[in-house]
Amino acid sequence: MERVDELIIVIGSAQESHTLSNPFTAGERIEMIRRTLEGNNIDLSTIYFIPIPDILMNSVWVYHVKSFSPNFDLIISRNPLVLRLFKEAKYEILEPPPYDRKIYNSTYIRRLMIENNNEWEKLVPTEVSNYIHEIKGDERLRSIAGLS
Amino acid sequence: MERVDELIIVIGSAQESHTLSNPFTAGERIEMIRRTLEGNNIDLSTIYFIPIPDILMNSVWVYHVKSFSPNFDLIISRNPLVLRLFKEAKYEILEPPPYDRKIYNSTYIRRLMIENNNEWEKLVPTEVSNYIHEIKGDERLRSIAGLS
Amino acid sequence: MERVDELIIVIGSAQESHTLSNPFTAGERIEMIRRTLEGNNIDLSTIYFIPIPDILMNSVWVYHVKSFSPNFDLIISRNPLVLRLFKEAKYEILEPPPYDRKIYNSTYIRRLMIENNNEWEKLVPTEVSNYIHEIKGDERLRSIAGLS
Amino acid sequence: MERVDELIIVIGSAQESHTLSNPFTAGERIEMIRRTLEGNNIDLSTIYFIPIPDILMNSVWVYHVKSFSPNFDLIISRNPLVLRLFKEAKYEILEPPPYDRKIYNSTYIRRLMIENNNEWEKLVPTEVSNYIHEIKGDERLRSIAGLS
Amino acid sequence: MERVDELIIVIGSAQESHTLSNPFTAGERIEMIRRTLEGNNIDLSTIYFIPIPDILMNSVWVYHVKSFSPNFDLIISRNPLVLRLFKEAKYEILEPPPYDRKIYNSTYIRRLMIENNNEWEKLVPTEVSNYIHEIKGDERLRSIAGLS
Amino acid sequence: MERVDELIIVIGSAQESHTLSNPFTAGERIEMIRRTLEGNNIDLSTIYFIPIPDILMNSVWVYHVKSFSPNFDLIISRNPLVLRLFKEAKYEILEPPPYDRKIYNSTYIRRLMIENNNEWEKLVPTEVSNYIHEIKGDERLRSIAGLS
Repeated sequence: MERVDELIIVIGSAQESHTLSNPFTAGERIEMIRRTLEGNNIDLSTIYFIPIPDILMNSVWVYHVKSFSPNFDLIISRNPLVLRLFKEAKYEILEPPPYDRKIYNSTYIRRLMIENNNEWEKLVPTEVSNYIHEIKGDERLRSIAGLS
Repeated sequence: MERVDELIIVIGSAQESHTLSNPFTAGERIEMIRRTLEGNNIDLSTIYFIPIPDILMNSVWVYHVKSFSPNFDLIISRNPLVLRLFKEAKYEILEPPPYDRKIYNSTYIRRLMIENNNEWEKLVPTEVSNYIHEIKGDERLRSIAGLS
Repeated sequence: MERVDELIIVIGSAQESHTLSNPFTAGERIEMIRRTLEGNNIDLSTIYFIPIPDILMNSVWVYHVKSFSPNFDLIISRNPLVLRLFKEAKYEILEPPPYDRKIYNSTYIRRLMIENNNEWEKLVPTEVSNYIHEIKGDERLRSIAGLS
Repeated sequence: MERVDELIIVIGSAQESHTLSNPFTAGERIEMIRRTLEGNNIDLSTIYFIPIPDILMNSVWVYHVKSFSPNFDLIISRNPLVLRLFKEAKYEILEPPPYDRKIYNSTYIRRLMIENNNEWEKLVPTEVSNYIHEIKGDERLRSIAGLS
Repeated sequence: MERVDELIIVIGSAQESHTLSNPFTAGERIEMIRRTLEGNNIDLSTIYFIPIPDILMNSVWVYHVKSFSPNFDLIISRNPLVLRLFKEAKYEILEPPPYDRKIYNSTYIRRLMIENNNEWEKLVPTEVSNYIHEIKGDERLRSIAGLS
Repeated sequence: MERVDELIIVIGSAQESHTLSNPFTAGERIEMIRRTLEGNNIDLSTIYFIPIPDILMNSVWVYHVKSFSPNFDLIISRNPLVLRLFKEAKYEILEPPPYDRKIYNSTYIRRLMIENNNEWEKLVPTEVSNYIHEIKGDERLRSIAGLS
């Protein structure tokens, strides 16, 4: 928020939920981010949450995002495909802040959840672990994995 | 906003644009509403804009909305199909405020635009008419209608 | 059933419901037919109900039906497009029995329902009118039409 | 059939065929089950076969099934995802009978077919192996695997 | 061909056939144009025929066409929506030659066919009327209209 | 071209691009083949390029191809699934010429590109390597792989 006036948070693969890689609905993912921002006293009035379903055609994906979203000038992402597609469409890219990708790794965190190892709670914001417990999201993930 | 804590504004048929009934993209529609709320000094921090593409299966539409959106308890809509679907799914319905449906009628407003009759500007908030001029939305509508 | 050994009843546009022309889900349509057949003591053990969603590509539709359905040799239909598509695919067509198409007309029957005119009950089998009352299907149709 | 009055057999991924995991069309799968039930003198008049295409949105899948199918109260399945989705939608689950999952394993049976090992015939009902030979289904599977 | 080096003929709504407005498959439409060009001794080696299915999202349609087609610089079309979409994407538009739109009107020609009025044959190139007779296309159109 | 009068080159999975297995759009793939044929002085006037998007229903795929394409009698392919589907639809199959599948292997060639090993240029026609450099296709592939 120090670098931009408005922030549009795109929730990709919005149609997906209850899978091993996307256990939560788009709406649940919005709730997690929203509560975390609130918990950090970040002003929500200049932040949008835009769920975008997959379109399965990479060549038009940038224009699909553009049509679902308020206007934007800069892109922040760590996804190589997303970066490439916006670069080919001549968008300017902003470098995201560095982080420790070994432990803040979504596959690793979901694996801990599946193994019923509570260590995952320390790797996500408190608001997120509370919310996941509230909706029994960890139980859901274990069910999908065939373990409960 | 006097009756609810949070407001989720669903932008329906989000995949549609450049048609006679939906000339604007979902993102452009969000901009119009957002600017109008800002112009009226309404606090945006408790308002969400959720674009939702059509799914063409009315029997699952309520659950489709539910999965794209943060949690909600009440429905406000004037669309008879939307009201019916949420009612069958046991949601509580809030009565929207009355309005003059003869002149605040989207088909009528778009017809004025197509006929190049500036009267349409008086039937929408100033922020909306300014934005439509900015993106040449009236010219777009006339083009689609085959008139420019 | 006098002319065939097995009957496959295809429920077309199976994804559609809650519209003016298809107010009922595929499952509800199956229930209506099933109950009527039962009420007429017709043996159900050689009858299939196969819901088939629209595919929006007429050129492949026959093969779409074929892949969803047990094997069949003969086609019975009154729909001109259905007849043409199966004819182009070299299927044999059976003539359906004649009927009075002025009053046994689904558009007319649905219009009576919308107008809350109970005459529609006499134009459908008793099992169907009972079932529609049971699921409040006439109320649903009026709601969709914006009349309740 | 001892535990229920009516049985609705859902044929999932109904749009799929000619793949390594789903070599048969929905219609062919219905034929296999139907012939087996007939061969065991099971009354078919209270059994439905409902093909359901994938919808790729787990959050609405239960309601998709509901709209394609006659009314149901209980769910029988061994699929963890199916069980989880129906559980979240508050359906009651019936325990399926135990079986030897090492040899009655569809992946194993298809692998035997691909390797042209006739042992697969002993792992399916006679009606099924006869039907697969009739439609040259084992040859189809080997072709798809690139082996004939 | 006097104004361009290469011509890409886009066959739109390529998934559609056997409807009143698009009775012919994309492949049949390509055959009609191809035979007419051949009959006029036009060099086919610099002409492409690119069938493009509808995508139902106008905001990405230009990029959808771009990804299916070899590279192009200029657009020729009489369709107002197509012209608008390419104009918004900053493409240069070429004016198509004038013609008598009263009689060279596809709706009128199809109506003549439906009415079994042979006058339609004079309004299309000989190659097209021959081809339509060859595939019994006029009979198909009457069948779809419910007239044979 | 010695064995056939006309050649229809089907560009499959036409909707796909910017993936590890299909890095190029259908249009770019057409350009590569077209330029190679031109470089070999092959007459292009009897060759069609038909992009065909995936339909995800193998049982209707042959008829999908048929509807997008001018008429054809013979099939040439090395893909086992394609051959099986056309064989089930009673098409005649032509044997493609033998080749060294160890080095003329698309997965191997794309891997060389990702590893920035210029050896890939020797495994494709000069026209193709020139075109890929022109559109920076090798850089695109490395980007998608997360390597640049």
